[in-house]
Amino acid sequence: MVTRLVDLRSDTVTKPSEAMRAAMADAEVDDAVLGDDPTAFRLEFQMAQIMGKEAALFVPSGTMGNLISVLTHCDIRGSEVILGDNSHIHIYENGGISTIGGVHARTVKNNKDGTMDINLIESAIRDPAGTLVYPTTRLICLENSQANCGGRCLSVEYTDRVGELAKNHGLKLHIDGARIFNASVALGVPVHRLVEAADSVSVCLSKGLGAPVGSVIVGSKSFIAKAKILRKTLGGGMRQVGILCAAALVAIQENVAKLVDDHRKAKMLAEGLCQIKGFQVDVDAVETNIIYVDIVEGSNITAEKLCKNLKQHGILAFPEGPLSIRLVLHYQISESDVQYTLSCIQTIAAGF
Amino acid sequence: MVTRLVDLRSDTVTKPSEAMRAAMADAEVDDAVLGDDPTAFRLEFQMAQIMGKEAALFVPSGTMGNLISVLTHCDIRGSEVILGDNSHIHIYENGGISTIGGVHARTVKNNKDGTMDINLIESAIRDPAGTLVYPTTRLICLENSQANCGGRCLSVEYTDRVGELAKNHGLKLHIDGARIFNASVALGVPVHRLVEAADSVSVCLSKGLGAPVGSVIVGSKSFIAKAKILRKTLGGGMRQVGILCAAALVAIQENVAKLVDDHRKAKMLAEGLCQIKGFQVDVDAVETNIIYVDIVEGSNITAEKLCKNLKQHGILAFPEGPLSIRLVLHYQISESDVQYTLSCIQTIAAGF
Amino acid sequence: MVTRLVDLRSDTVTKPSEAMRAAMADAEVDDAVLGDDPTAFRLEFQMAQIMGKEAALFVPSGTMGNLISVLTHCDIRGSEVILGDNSHIHIYENGGISTIGGVHARTVKNNKDGTMDINLIESAIRDPAGTLVYPTTRLICLENSQANCGGRCLSVEYTDRVGELAKNHGLKLHIDGARIFNASVALGVPVHRLVEAADSVSVCLSKGLGAPVGSVIVGSKSFIAKAKILRKTLGGGMRQVGILCAAALVAIQENVAKLVDDHRKAKMLAEGLCQIKGFQVDVDAVETNIIYVDIVEGSNITAEKLCKNLKQHGILAFPEGPLSIRLVLHYQISESDVQYTLSCIQTIAAGF
Amino acid sequence: MVTRLVDLRSDTVTKPSEAMRAAMADAEVDDAVLGDDPTAFRLEFQMAQIMGKEAALFVPSGTMGNLISVLTHCDIRGSEVILGDNSHIHIYENGGISTIGGVHARTVKNNKDGTMDINLIESAIRDPAGTLVYPTTRLICLENSQANCGGRCLSVEYTDRVGELAKNHGLKLHIDGARIFNASVALGVPVHRLVEAADSVSVCLSKGLGAPVGSVIVGSKSFIAKAKILRKTLGGGMRQVGILCAAALVAIQENVAKLVDDHRKAKMLAEGLCQIKGFQVDVDAVETNIIYVDIVEGSNITAEKLCKNLKQHGILAFPEGPLSIRLVLHYQISESDVQYTLSCIQTIAAGF
Repeated sequence: MVTRLVDLRSDTVTKPSEAMRAAMADAEVDDAVLGDDPTAFRLEFQMAQIMGKEAALFVPSGTMGNLISVLTHCDIRGSEVILGDNSHIHIYENGGISTIGGVHARTVKNNKDGTMDINLIESAIRDPAGTLVYPTTRLICLENSQANCGGRCLSVEYTDRVGELAKNHGLKLHIDGARIFNASVALGVPVHRLVEAADSVSVCLSKGLGAPVGSVIVGSKSFIAKAKILRKTLGGGMRQVGILCAAALVAIQENVAKLVDDHRKAKMLAEGLCQIKGFQVDVDAVETNIIYVDIVEGSNITAEKLCKNLKQHGILAFPEGPLSIRLVLHYQISESDVQYTLSCIQTIAAGF
Repeated sequence: MVTRLVDLRSDTVTKPSEAMRAAMADAEVDDAVLGDDPTAFRLEFQMAQIMGKEAALFVPSGTMGNLISVLTHCDIRGSEVILGDNSHIHIYENGGISTIGGVHARTVKNNKDGTMDINLIESAIRDPAGTLVYPTTRLICLENSQANCGGRCLSVEYTDRVGELAKNHGLKLHIDGARIFNASVALGVPVHRLVEAADSVSVCLSKGLGAPVGSVIVGSKSFIAKAKILRKTLGGGMRQVGILCAAALVAIQENVAKLVDDHRKAKMLAEGLCQIKGFQVDVDAVETNIIYVDIVEGSNITAEKLCKNLKQHGILAFPEGPLSIRLVLHYQISESDVQYTLSCIQTIAAGF
Repeated sequence: MVTRLVDLRSDTVTKPSEAMRAAMADAEVDDAVLGDDPTAFRLEFQMAQIMGKEAALFVPSGTMGNLISVLTHCDIRGSEVILGDNSHIHIYENGGISTIGGVHARTVKNNKDGTMDINLIESAIRDPAGTLVYPTTRLICLENSQANCGGRCLSVEYTDRVGELAKNHGLKLHIDGARIFNASVALGVPVHRLVEAADSVSVCLSKGLGAPVGSVIVGSKSFIAKAKILRKTLGGGMRQVGILCAAALVAIQENVAKLVDDHRKAKMLAEGLCQIKGFQVDVDAVETNIIYVDIVEGSNITAEKLCKNLKQHGILAFPEGPLSIRLVLHYQISESDVQYTLSCIQTIAAGF
Repeated sequence: MVTRLVDLRSDTVTKPSEAMRAAMADAEVDDAVLGDDPTAFRLEFQMAQIMGKEAALFVPSGTMGNLISVLTHCDIRGSEVILGDNSHIHIYENGGISTIGGVHARTVKNNKDGTMDINLIESAIRDPAGTLVYPTTRLICLENSQANCGGRCLSVEYTDRVGELAKNHGLKLHIDGARIFNASVALGVPVHRLVEAADSVSVCLSKGLGAPVGSVIVGSKSFIAKAKILRKTLGGGMRQVGILCAAALVAIQENVAKLVDDHRKAKMLAEGLCQIKGFQVDVDAVETNIIYVDIVEGSNITAEKLCKNLKQHGILAFPEGPLSIRLVLHYQISESDVQYTLSCIQTIAAGF
């Protein structure tokens, strides 16, 4: 019988802490759709300040944060967005920017480190002279850290250069900052500096930060004013949402500082896995809290079977490919959980 | 200085009760997007049962509930929906079914009692023979109770007849049941019977029921399976959403029974207003918790000015037109609040 | 055996005249998509002048003309258009403005004479203060003459008043002028005066004017520049389109003057039908080339059966309802055809 | 003064031949929207036969042909199409599949020869198990010959393999056959064999075939029935369109056989250019009628300047990049034109 649960599927699985629960129970709330919820207001104000932007808006999810941001920047029919071919928006958000928003997606190859070559981005920008046959490029999207590239971080320098490119071509820059605090911590750069070049950022509160629900998008006042209307259209306007915002305020206070530990534990897990025959991890690529683990070809196991075996030990993980699994650390995984995971995998590997 | 607050703007403004707060603090939660949240599951199971449908899905708002429902029934390009020209979906939801969903709106006149003439609905159904130039009718929407018609209720008989019409033409029937419990209580009919003819219903938890956030849509298993995907696309998938669902479970238990009082207080308020010179209310039309108050032409006041005056007495209300205001009762308005409101309006009227 | 064909289904059925065929055979053409076709240029220049607008664009059909116009004025996501509930755009164009363009339709009742009450239009305009829940009204559409209201004409005064209303609210005005020349001729008003208040007009060349294919939209230079892009997006950009434009140039020259005869013949037919037992026509309502003929209830025939019988005499017509048919005159229907039609109907009626 | 015009911008620039003009002047026509045009019917019947498909539909342009095809296969909200990152649909059609159709674009790299690696296509197909976050792959698009890859041809074998892949995954295959006859001639394969694996093909009549206007899409009867509705929605339904179809019928008869000459002349031009210092052409890559000419770096001229100089000699061409131009042969370019062009370029090059 399993008595221990180590949930490494995602950093979205954290349970609210006691402090968050207390905050939710005590939250001062009002009708946020009518613009009256004081706790939502406080969270938005604080996030705007942290991110160095004029205004902020609480939304139910990161997917909605990105969808609203892309659609707000691309509010005119005929818009195109440039984004990474391995980005979360392109791969994991149902193609909503097109299927819901009618925005045409132009992808640029994501390098292994999450960057797109600047010159490839530039050459993907449509020449306004060809507007008779081209859609109009209106937006570039980056993602930091980049989930599907193993949680790799984009540097300030890179982000600034893309921002400059955008500005030079009259484009907007959106950053999917689902894990922007992870990047900030990993790079040792204040988060506002990391998004300085961006016109909008969506920041997830319920991943590494551990809040139960929600994301925040930040940007200029006029951007947020438009975003608010779109949030209502999509059905993301919630009434006494201060309940959730109260937990998020605790999450920011409690958990940003703990991200450094998540990264340390990720490194520890990655290094440990490298010692186990049959597994490979690019340890240098583990910059934040996400690990991609490759099963060496010829090993007598598949990713799917491995995940099933792990589940019997109370360890949850998702296969990423036939011979690859993804492990995600968060503040509710202890060092002891890491050691336990390593020993279980050792055991499983021994039985290949 | 105002010490009393009587918020009659909407039944969305209720604050969570102590029991709801306790339930949220104690809620057993997990990642609902991954399908693991036990409290979300419990709420959805319970709502499906109450509404007499196979399955249910928690969504952040009534707007999203309606949007998902319409788009799920109208998932093929070229769809048209028949709905009331005074319905919430048509008037107050940003036109999202078209601007986000590409569904063409065909309106039928809402009578004062919220019904649409059955023969008008029937003649609005597009002849499949004309499909070369017509969009394809796929859905009829009703709203019960009908907010913009003064909270009037649609009877079981009426709803059944529309359902039969829909079935005969191979159409689906969606009911915007934002206040379906109000209708159920007012009509003295079990709520599941009131929606028996519907293929889907969206039910609001944060209006009369008083939950802080959320709606639930119900329907067949296959409808809900599709709706779940669309919820994710729109960004309505929330992680440890059991927090909100816990409050909603309390709301259902605590507040359905109180709706009868809301209706009684609405009647009381309506009758009282009729006694005040300068005001008119169609008392017979006050079937649930919504009152439309007309200012008699020639009175020396406008709706806007009246609302400003009321605010100075701590009473909040929205103007509906130049000479009309809307008042909405809910369980956090006491009989004493009703009396206070009447006496304030009396005072204001005396000063016209 | 039928030797005579009288096609009264629509004024779209005309065959090109010898002069049109000669013009097409001789047309000077080039690649219009590359902007080089001289005949397309000439047609567009001439139509812009006739309509009193800055610029014009040839499009394959009236449906595309309306679609492009509505979408160009409503190029921002979240737009709403106000249009007649009996207008061609709303009823007969597949709901394309929504299903293709994502524009929300807000209908106002068309009176029998094709007008919409100005105050109803005004009250359908969304209050910008409610933008959080309302779509944004951006356009009003009129149709002149109004096909589905029996070819009734909107006066200059009416059109100007709607134009003024639009201007006062910062809206655009589009006129579906599929049969604007019919209206011009019937009212005795220069066509440019009739559309003076409009920001755009779509004019059909292949209805009363008798060109084989095409419509033209007119408006400001900036409107047409945007429309051109959208025409390409929709696939309406055609290469050596001067062929069709050559015929259209002849059509304008030859057939505008003949519209007065179409109206006279329509009147003649309408009056004749009134003399036949079992049929009713509102002769006063026959202002242009369209006649709606009602079969008196109790007559022993349906519209469908009548059309079948007529076909056996070589007369083609469409049923409009169970007891109603539509007859449309055009320049290839002679007075003798009218007499023949009357006598055939007389014969059929005698056999009821 | 220039007396000679050599238009190498595109094969869309051809002027209709005398036979085409005569055919247009004599065409038997009727209202095609009402389904009555005999010449449209003949063209569609003939093209269906040539392409080996059940049915066909005339449309105003290749862009509309592709748009209708993609949208018809992807008629359910949430669809994704896999297509080449250098394909005409992705690059030159305004992103209409997304901006008009809400279809999400998933690109796969086009190799220099126009193919996409089969395994890359396969890995781009979305796993139906991930439908909660993935759009649904419904279609693969190929282009043959591939304009933007220098008119390179896809073989029967390649096309069949992609078709098999599509079938195995329950997907549809559309071929943008704007220049499918060029591919057929170049490969020496009957055109129907080349598209056997496709569920739909759009074939351009106004490129190499030299008809003034139009494309035809072919596919199953049910596909064409749906396509017809969408053609009407987009405004591509044209009345006496038999005029254009008559020219197209001549084009097919006259010009398919001449494509082999276009290819020969293209080769001749390419080989000639290789002899001129400062220019490079991959002669082996010139499989059909399109030549990409590179200006050797260090030459004292840009593509734009070269095109300007050529224009002074009556030779029209488009720059493709800073140091690259595109030349397209067609049946109205003679061998003498080719020699003239070469000698003009020689002269220009001498003056670098």
